[in-house]
Amino acid sequence: MAKVSKTRKPKGKEKPVILITNDDGVMAPGIRNLIEAVKDLGKIVVVAPDKPQSGMGHAITIGFPLRLHPVKLMDDVEAWSCSGTPVDCVKIAVDKVLHRKPDLCISGINHGANHSINVIYSGTMSAAIEASIENIPSIGFSLLNYSLEADFTGARHYARLIVEKILKTKSDKHLCLNVNIPSVDVSLIKGIKNCRQAYAKYEEDFHERKDPTGRKYYWLTGEFVNFDKGKDTDVWALENNFVSVVPVQFDLTNYTLKTKLDKTLKW
Amino acid sequence: MAKVSKTRKPKGKEKPVILITNDDGVMAPGIRNLIEAVKDLGKIVVVAPDKPQSGMGHAITIGFPLRLHPVKLMDDVEAWSCSGTPVDCVKIAVDKVLHRKPDLCISGINHGANHSINVIYSGTMSAAIEASIENIPSIGFSLLNYSLEADFTGARHYARLIVEKILKTKSDKHLCLNVNIPSVDVSLIKGIKNCRQAYAKYEEDFHERKDPTGRKYYWLTGEFVNFDKGKDTDVWALENNFVSVVPVQFDLTNYTLKTKLDKTLKW
Repeated sequence: MAKVSKTRKPKGKEKPVILITNDDGVMAPGIRNLIEAVKDLGKIVVVAPDKPQSGMGHAITIGFPLRLHPVKLMDDVEAWSCSGTPVDCVKIAVDKVLHRKPDLCISGINHGANHSINVIYSGTMSAAIEASIENIPSIGFSLLNYSLEADFTGARHYARLIVEKILKTKSDKHLCLNVNIPSVDVSLIKGIKNCRQAYAKYEEDFHERKDPTGRKYYWLTGEFVNFDKGKDTDVWALENNFVSVVPVQFDLTNYTLKTKLDKTLKW
Repeated sequence: MAKVSKTRKPKGKEKPVILITNDDGVMAPGIRNLIEAVKDLGKIVVVAPDKPQSGMGHAITIGFPLRLHPVKLMDDVEAWSCSGTPVDCVKIAVDKVLHRKPDLCISGINHGANHSINVIYSGTMSAAIEASIENIPSIGFSLLNYSLEADFTGARHYARLIVEKILKTKSDKHLCLNVNIPSVDVSLIKGIKNCRQAYAKYEEDFHERKDPTGRKYYWLTGEFVNFDKGKDTDVWALENNFVSVVPVQFDLTNYTLKTKLDKTLKW
């Protein structure tokens, strides 16, 4: 497994260690594009799920053990597949593969949008959030295109630009950025905008079907509805061909509501 | 399936509809205790996982359909088991069981703590958060005792008290409370405190073992470390025998960091 310095910050010419993961699985085109985009910026170590894990949110594996296997993705890149969730991948990467915290964790490039409420369901973003919990600055990248044949040119360009910038900047140790890239020709992307998470949600509509024995089953489908007309949101930025960057936190306390409850809810 | 009024608010003598779910599974003692504690406060409809789903966080089922089966838990209580995650249970309950939003969603009583960072891994709390995303006020309850034989007396008492209070109060439609109850005799519990989420995390330590064919596998274990000395946190309240109540949000935007990045990160 990776032999890396026990010290956290790269000194002099020492390359930063960049952990790469995703939720579409280690063989997905998105992660390959992310590796290729940043390969020369540090020592790359990949620990990613051995199968698709979209929609796994912040799930961890309890009650079952995990497997870890070396995989050959490309030259000069140490890569491992893990039988667990994206969050498991970050945990086992730090404890068993790297034996220390990497300098940066990047996740993706996700096949499909992780803007607005999607951040909460996304395995890609949960891996990045897990890294930030562990004091590892992190970035999740998503391209607004679900196709396996999607054109990653724009996503690669902006992922590299953002990783370079973050590596040069003294980061907050809990820094976690949710980056979404519009699925348009790179020449049409107008730039990068810091945003807030749009208030949007899915209106669920389960499709009811019957199996060959006549028993019902249900497929989750839903319509995405954006209730947020703000021009400072990730959805607005993406609709206007900007790359959206939302800083994400793991303190879920609703402080506004807490202040209100302190006044109104006497126990 | 449940025949309930299409209108949201209970009028006159109409009982409020209370959706109950959990992550330990429909047969867990915790959910039975929660049902018994609040049974007379409304029309109870249970939709809970058909197997333990602890640590599933905000996972949803993509790529597989869901099953829904009626189960007999106790008299006068409509109950369903669902093959999906806790978040799936809330989604399918609203769309296919109730055909409308319930007046309140309660989740638990979880076997084990969901204070501090646990909120992010917890299926119990993710179900409650999902309800709040869908404009359903919600409360997750957890008892600081993992045992299936735990004494739920204190947890039942406070769960009922809190549900009664929230049903009487005009709630924020996104209200989501993370309630943890200390595992001590009810006579020792000093009361209820509104809190913020403590900054704490797990230091992972995967146990490495070998299977009968000699191949390695890894068990996730970890030590819980609380870095937060504040007396306004859920961990402090619980250590001092208070029931902790943390209002929880699904807007993950880190506004403090956003303001900082707006000044320092020029793209």
